[in-house]
Amino acid sequence: MLPEAIEAMTEQLGQVGNASSLHAAGRRARRVVEEARESIADALGARPSEVVFTSGGTEADNLAVKGLYWVRAPRRRVLVSSVEHHGVLDPAHWLADTQGAQVELLPVDELGRVRPDALRAAIDRDPDDVALVSVMWANNEVGTVQPIHVLAAAARDHGIPFHTDAVQAVGQLPVSFAASGADAVTVSGHKTGGPVGVGALLLARGLTPVPVQHGGGQERDVRSGTLDAPAIAGFAAAVRIAVKEQESQRLRLAELRDDLIRRVRQAVPDVVLNGDPAERLPGNAHFSFPGCEGDALLMLLDAKGVECSTGSACSAGVAQPSHVLLAMGADAVSARGSLRFSLGHTSTRDDVDRLVEVLPAAVERARRAGLS
Amino acid sequence: MLPEAIEAMTEQLGQVGNASSLHAAGRRARRVVEEARESIADALGARPSEVVFTSGGTEADNLAVKGLYWVRAPRRRVLVSSVEHHGVLDPAHWLADTQGAQVELLPVDELGRVRPDALRAAIDRDPDDVALVSVMWANNEVGTVQPIHVLAAAARDHGIPFHTDAVQAVGQLPVSFAASGADAVTVSGHKTGGPVGVGALLLARGLTPVPVQHGGGQERDVRSGTLDAPAIAGFAAAVRIAVKEQESQRLRLAELRDDLIRRVRQAVPDVVLNGDPAERLPGNAHFSFPGCEGDALLMLLDAKGVECSTGSACSAGVAQPSHVLLAMGADAVSARGSLRFSLGHTSTRDDVDRLVEVLPAAVERARRAGLS
Repeated sequence: MLPEAIEAMTEQLGQVGNASSLHAAGRRARRVVEEARESIADALGARPSEVVFTSGGTEADNLAVKGLYWVRAPRRRVLVSSVEHHGVLDPAHWLADTQGAQVELLPVDELGRVRPDALRAAIDRDPDDVALVSVMWANNEVGTVQPIHVLAAAARDHGIPFHTDAVQAVGQLPVSFAASGADAVTVSGHKTGGPVGVGALLLARGLTPVPVQHGGGQERDVRSGTLDAPAIAGFAAAVRIAVKEQESQRLRLAELRDDLIRRVRQAVPDVVLNGDPAERLPGNAHFSFPGCEGDALLMLLDAKGVECSTGSACSAGVAQPSHVLLAMGADAVSARGSLRFSLGHTSTRDDVDRLVEVLPAAVERARRAGLS
Repeated sequence: MLPEAIEAMTEQLGQVGNASSLHAAGRRARRVVEEARESIADALGARPSEVVFTSGGTEADNLAVKGLYWVRAPRRRVLVSSVEHHGVLDPAHWLADTQGAQVELLPVDELGRVRPDALRAAIDRDPDDVALVSVMWANNEVGTVQPIHVLAAAARDHGIPFHTDAVQAVGQLPVSFAASGADAVTVSGHKTGGPVGVGALLLARGLTPVPVQHGGGQERDVRSGTLDAPAIAGFAAAVRIAVKEQESQRLRLAELRDDLIRRVRQAVPDVVLNGDPAERLPGNAHFSFPGCEGDALLMLLDAKGVECSTGSACSAGVAQPSHVLLAMGADAVSARGSLRFSLGHTSTRDDVDRLVEVLPAAVERARRAGLS
């Protein structure tokens, strides 16, 4: 967390008051929430009334996908990209399994891009039956940035709500709700340097998804539950700084990342960079290491103080190859031999030095382990 | 928030690491979460594997009501008490409106109690079609404590899952998940002196509700979303203290509350105490003030530094009479003239002195306002 976000949050932790209560402490908490709402709206090109606070990105995704599906009944088609986060994919599949939805996964090319033509063709097969379209702003695994404005326009041409999960984009890329043309945008607290456990769905006026969390009627009856004033205050502080520093941060990280990519290629000549080489998140470098198990390589690097992630979800002890890489045309073996290196506001040139110093031996060892 | 909970939480805010990540920072966050899980389980008579973390009480209620309804399909009957919190009532009504449920509101007597006979009779009308029963442990407005063990047994006799919202009970009453006989228990962070934005559903082994929040598969695939390690640490610290001090706190608060009730009755002789005079939350005193509008009286007391709550939910600027009081047989006028005074760990005799000092004039003024 950014120190400013920690400060804004801890300042509120000692305070009492439920933002929905009428008494003085409640009204004070309400002011904290409303000032945060204005600040986030301002930073992200939205109106304050378009900000719906949630418990995080996953909840915002669920609200967008399920809530828009239900409110657009009896339309049944749900068009989502095949490289979405599970926060979008899993609600969509659940709607198909239990609520009568017909989910269609939009294909991506070998760089992970959803082609606007593919979206237009999918819509055109039966536009009147499309409940919603959801395509993430930038991919959390391979870093590919989608042509969101063009995709949103394709949906808008048919009056279809367009949702995008912008969890990875805020603070790394310019994000304006108004300019994007999207009707619903997911934002999370901790990916912007704010706290875990808070997020928001930016929601165009006139669009009222059915709640996934019913109760006291907070957030215009779209999302019930006691408003988390301290986390919301920390979230707002983080968004403000992340957006203010986005341009300089983007330039710094992109340079660091390009250096990382160049030197990883020198150190491991047969490495493959995944994702779009140009249109990608500035802090993302994602590679396939032929002949390596990603999990083994991760553990070897971790032991040397280098932290990275595999795209794989470990389910019941069995590593699954990333659905993102498979959708981009990778085979299961190379998908499993992939790692993501993420750079953020604390990353430095020293981190890159450390990585390229320990990487060749770790790759060598992971390859030997893979052969035995 | 309790100072110990603030400390436990802020200690984690500066740490990085996603509890679902494999690298060292992730594993550290995971340890924090698992230690908190063990601590909460231990304090509440549950097993660690029975604790599912959520973003708060409302989400836990939604998960219990919707999730158990869906997993028990094709059963359609949902039996909930007529005095439930909106976190239970609203999901139940939504299931009826859109998912084919048949919601039956269990009646309460004039003290707000659900009679075990009434529950048994309702079940017996068609036990095989009952998806779940939900009755809160103690009422958040009038403070009435339900005979949870007896009610849970009535459901268990038919193998029907029994859920109870224990948000008000933890820290005020002895709460043991194992001894209660309930299959699912809602707990919230901020009502125990912990942070807002975190809670848990205690869930008996073998019972797997359908998620309301789909995604990465955290919490045994029952509740997805990045685990909020700092809030969970603060929550665990608060529960530990609240449960440890529950007995002494209960005695202290009950004495203070009985003094408050006695002196309010002296100050306003025609006041009516609502709820069960014996089986009630130790920190709850709830009155109807004949001839007063509750909102007006609240504002007058607030101006004098006394904070209290109306049971009414203000929807679109129109005060609604409390559904709890209406279910107990009150008429709309006396329901609107009602206020709750809550006592907690910071409440003292001075607070009661202050209340009875300013109350008569405030009631007098609210009555004159009501006449004009």
